[in-house]
Amino acid sequence: MNREIKNCETPDIFVCEDYIEEEPKLCELDNSKTYKGLVGIYVDKSLITYIGGIKGELYYRGYPLHNLVENSSFEEVAYLLIYGKLPTRSELDSFKDELIKERNIPDNILSILKSFPRNTTRIELLRTSISALSLYDPDDYDFSEEANIRKGLRIIAKIPTVLAFSHRIQGNLPLIEPSEELSHACNYYYMMTGEVPNNEFTRFFDKILICHMDHSINSSTFSCRVTVSTLSDIYSGITSAIGTLRGPLHGGANERVINLMLGEIKKKENIIPWAKNKLEKKEKIMGFGHRVYKTWDPRAKILREISRTLWNNPDIIEKIPDIEHEEHKGEIDNIFEMTEILAEYMIKTKNIYPNVDLYSAGALHALGVPTALFTPLFAASRCAGWVAHAIEQFSDNKLIRPRLRYIGELDKNYIKIAER
Amino acid sequence: MNREIKNCETPDIFVCEDYIEEEPKLCELDNSKTYKGLVGIYVDKSLITYIGGIKGELYYRGYPLHNLVENSSFEEVAYLLIYGKLPTRSELDSFKDELIKERNIPDNILSILKSFPRNTTRIELLRTSISALSLYDPDDYDFSEEANIRKGLRIIAKIPTVLAFSHRIQGNLPLIEPSEELSHACNYYYMMTGEVPNNEFTRFFDKILICHMDHSINSSTFSCRVTVSTLSDIYSGITSAIGTLRGPLHGGANERVINLMLGEIKKKENIIPWAKNKLEKKEKIMGFGHRVYKTWDPRAKILREISRTLWNNPDIIEKIPDIEHEEHKGEIDNIFEMTEILAEYMIKTKNIYPNVDLYSAGALHALGVPTALFTPLFAASRCAGWVAHAIEQFSDNKLIRPRLRYIGELDKNYIKIAER
Repeated sequence: MNREIKNCETPDIFVCEDYIEEEPKLCELDNSKTYKGLVGIYVDKSLITYIGGIKGELYYRGYPLHNLVENSSFEEVAYLLIYGKLPTRSELDSFKDELIKERNIPDNILSILKSFPRNTTRIELLRTSISALSLYDPDDYDFSEEANIRKGLRIIAKIPTVLAFSHRIQGNLPLIEPSEELSHACNYYYMMTGEVPNNEFTRFFDKILICHMDHSINSSTFSCRVTVSTLSDIYSGITSAIGTLRGPLHGGANERVINLMLGEIKKKENIIPWAKNKLEKKEKIMGFGHRVYKTWDPRAKILREISRTLWNNPDIIEKIPDIEHEEHKGEIDNIFEMTEILAEYMIKTKNIYPNVDLYSAGALHALGVPTALFTPLFAASRCAGWVAHAIEQFSDNKLIRPRLRYIGELDKNYIKIAER
Repeated sequence: MNREIKNCETPDIFVCEDYIEEEPKLCELDNSKTYKGLVGIYVDKSLITYIGGIKGELYYRGYPLHNLVENSSFEEVAYLLIYGKLPTRSELDSFKDELIKERNIPDNILSILKSFPRNTTRIELLRTSISALSLYDPDDYDFSEEANIRKGLRIIAKIPTVLAFSHRIQGNLPLIEPSEELSHACNYYYMMTGEVPNNEFTRFFDKILICHMDHSINSSTFSCRVTVSTLSDIYSGITSAIGTLRGPLHGGANERVINLMLGEIKKKENIIPWAKNKLEKKEKIMGFGHRVYKTWDPRAKILREISRTLWNNPDIIEKIPDIEHEEHKGEIDNIFEMTEILAEYMIKTKNIYPNVDLYSAGALHALGVPTALFTPLFAASRCAGWVAHAIEQFSDNKLIRPRLRYIGELDKNYIKIAER
């Protein structure tokens, strides 16, 4: 009783139960193909970010990343990503004020963070907190663009607070209230570590944040756009993005780089034998390779210089407050030198270039950022991009709803349970 | 200083920072096209659900929906969706036992639900609770297929509890603990309303759940698959799906149908003038139209008969315990008759058929389900499909990562803030 499925029987399918006037446009598609993973499929036009894979280029809103890293702060780039233009001095000042005003979280969210078990990832706590924060947003039922931007700014402002609070609760450390004076990067660092960084440290940290703020439609950003394409709210979109970032194929590689360097490799002379062994076993080497960049990832280049500067400064390296790896101190060689040896070997033998994670791992470690906060830092920084993409999606929305090709049998014979 | 973007400069882009061996396959794609909304793009093959739009057909795992609605329960169809085959009696019994065992939620999740403000949507509470539940899952760090199925069953079992608890907390009603005896549908109804439904009511409710359990890769299911395609966890996937369902282009239309009938239309004689006016103003009429079905949606046909039976039974209609609309009682005509008049008018004048929402609204109202729980019911039922799709995605995963076509300027001149 099985029968063949003909393509003509599966026109565009759509769970949206609304009355939709437009007809599906199927004529341009090859219905016989399946675009698994959507590799190479353009889902929309965008005015946010350009990635040039051949030359290793990255532009936010038309500005080369390295110009922004050199000249701008997190706040300025967040403004640029969301509004599409660089702010004037007064626009930037009031944008900063908005963010500062929104740094605190409702008491109940703090109580909830305290109530959770102690062995959880920071990303699960962040995903839950952002979802819960929508319940407290004064604009929860306002879906205008202005309200969406206000909600987006609240999320951007509160993520460092949620992360720092949850991290310090998990580690039984005293909480640090958000500052009303410090810049976004400086306050974020202060809340995590308990120390107000000097200007040099703040600049390094700010640059690292800027490098992670957008990367076009990576999977987390895509899940955010799919979610808001049903005209759901921006909290739902960013909750989806955080959950998507949790996967090891997306966020999290820099945590593994540093754990590898500190826990497994430790010494420069161990690197090449270790890498050879990995390659022979065809195992992945974290911190290398990228589907797009066929040369140096422009972010890796910037982070490499930051890592170089930090690891060449004995004053800084001496003071790394890394309580998690205290027992290894002295046993471990200079991380930057280790990453350089590994990078040279991988480029020479496999023509595979380092990616953003190899060098962000070393740089963040040198700055004293706790390893468990590496992936969350990706979220804290990328959230500016998520907000910009959600706003862009809302501005000319079309429900994102692809198809699945059913390849099973049809008209199976239902046998009553007593006879199975 | 602006320059043109050439397609050759944007090969496949990918934020995954892992070392990935395979090369993008671009040769089959038309790089000049943008597939906005992914209309008609097949993202993968699937063995779960087939939708035939021309003839109005819907199959779960090869079985026609109407066979399952006639013969099966929610539990049996959930088993079918997840495992791909109908269970034997003993498999079904142990599956039911698993679900019953997992109905309770951790005390802290209940405390958290109680701690939230009282004016929130049930879907926001559900999204937050499912995200928080991952923190308590004993398999949180186990990503094997068996563990993923166990996690999926826990989510399916707990959603009715979360929904009923949060709804009753929001309405200051006494909580009802989950039963250890009743079937999934019966217990769900009991926890929401406080009354154990008779067999007839339970069957109606079960049939409505079965109609909503899967619909191939609708937007919520797609967001779930995008999220888990980074190898994130199934709680993240279902949290994304719930947030996506929140949007008015996806869930929620049946709530608006009933509010319309009860609040705006009220009487049969008002229907056609009301619909004429809507159509003249080119406004959407909830409960009609579907991108795929060019005839009767098979689910709408089933729900129409349920609604007809319920609304033709004066004993049932007399007892609708709808506290939300108590003040309207007696003012409102038979809802089924009203939907029939509207359906006939829309088919005749516009050739647009009723969809699943038109009749589920009337049926759920007749069964005494509170209106605020209509959209959540969609989630409680669709979660079985989400779990099945997450498991299918994991079984042959490829990161879902499309592209965006950047259409802005490049190489913009960075002007220092003092000079802007």
